[in-house]
Amino acid sequence: MSVERSPPVVVVVEPESPGNIGTIARGMKNFGLKELKLVNPPPIERDGEAYGFAGHAREDILPAAEEVNFETIVNEYHTIGTTAITGEDSRRHIRFPYQTPAEVAESLQTVDAETALVFGREGRGLNNNELAELDVICSIPASAEYPVLNLGQAATVVFYELRSLMLSETQLPDIERERADEPDIDRLHSFFTKFLTRVEGREHKRQKTALMLRRLLGRAHPTQREVSRLTGLFRRANNKLSQMNESSE
Amino acid sequence: MSVERSPPVVVVVEPESPGNIGTIARGMKNFGLKELKLVNPPPIERDGEAYGFAGHAREDILPAAEEVNFETIVNEYHTIGTTAITGEDSRRHIRFPYQTPAEVAESLQTVDAETALVFGREGRGLNNNELAELDVICSIPASAEYPVLNLGQAATVVFYELRSLMLSETQLPDIERERADEPDIDRLHSFFTKFLTRVEGREHKRQKTALMLRRLLGRAHPTQREVSRLTGLFRRANNKLSQMNESSE
Repeated sequence: MSVERSPPVVVVVEPESPGNIGTIARGMKNFGLKELKLVNPPPIERDGEAYGFAGHAREDILPAAEEVNFETIVNEYHTIGTTAITGEDSRRHIRFPYQTPAEVAESLQTVDAETALVFGREGRGLNNNELAELDVICSIPASAEYPVLNLGQAATVVFYELRSLMLSETQLPDIERERADEPDIDRLHSFFTKFLTRVEGREHKRQKTALMLRRLLGRAHPTQREVSRLTGLFRRANNKLSQMNESSE
Repeated sequence: MSVERSPPVVVVVEPESPGNIGTIARGMKNFGLKELKLVNPPPIERDGEAYGFAGHAREDILPAAEEVNFETIVNEYHTIGTTAITGEDSRRHIRFPYQTPAEVAESLQTVDAETALVFGREGRGLNNNELAELDVICSIPASAEYPVLNLGQAATVVFYELRSLMLSETQLPDIERERADEPDIDRLHSFFTKFLTRVEGREHKRQKTALMLRRLLGRAHPTQREVSRLTGLFRRANNKLSQMNESSE
């Protein structure tokens, strides 16, 4: 059951690099987030790195970014903090239990509250006092050898996983809709079978090759265009081959 | 069915910014990828941006990055190119059909070939001649309004989605294993029920509140620690409440 809601706001606590603020703003725009709030940010200049990295978010999200304090966010929002976790933390309530970004997405489907996604500083992330005030801890599954993502990259992965909350549709054309209809695929198979009778004398080989094409198309989910093109190709080949047969008779 | 294979190699075609090369190297290390190849890269200086952005990948992936040409990659690998796609392209074989990163991950589970993930230039991506030579086109579902991700962010999302191919385990402790055993949860419920008989006189309210706790814990999947702590808390409360009852009797 999905409920009407505003998209989560994004909060970055004490970012050091304007470039990362720009990267986060761009990632937000890529996945349909709109509102950026900054706790104690560095100065953001119109001709500086934040705007340089923001892509089209330089037009809306970045100029509208608002300075806030951490306590206000904690008081007004259902808060989800992102942090790197190592195995050692599993007995500490500060960082455990965590949710993965995919689990956060699933759980937010049914939450009817204003939500804030909270990210920490580049070097040290969110500190324990801050984490203790947040409602949910989110951690990105990564290599045990090196699980600490760069701030902008971590935020992008979280936004990507939450996209279904924000985007009713994406830029991608619908492959399902573009898949060829079954009768057209069947028609292709019958042209191919006729083709095989012309070019493969051995009956058992014909059957195997026909089955191979069936499996190949079964896996590839061909589009209407692909099926039309292949059907046309074999039809033309069959016509030529039948003319050759006639002229050689 | 999963097969033994090397992790995919990562190829970046004509990257302009050393910083993006560093970001990509870091993302690779975060998700267990190892081999980086560059087509016509800019100079990479030890004290420059590539190393500055690479995190711990400055120790292995980045110094080992190899310069290659595009044709070699096409000839030697099963190639997956990442590109932004818009609805207009759905009839063009160059960019359609596409796979999402999640679909690429699923399909690679059973592919027994050396695979290369190919990313294009910052501004223009991979051109049509290049895309025409690649085996699979991958596109990240994003906002229809602004689907074009920054190169480093796009690569990170793809690496994240492919992580199951590279990482047999992540840094995250196993929540399943940390979940409390059912008998311990039952024990908590019986302490809570006793607690309710002490503090709630109305029988129908008691039942509702007991059920509420059952539902709450059912959703929250409490850890062993959480259950022990709550059980201890109610046991102590019950002891105190029973002493009060005795002293008032």
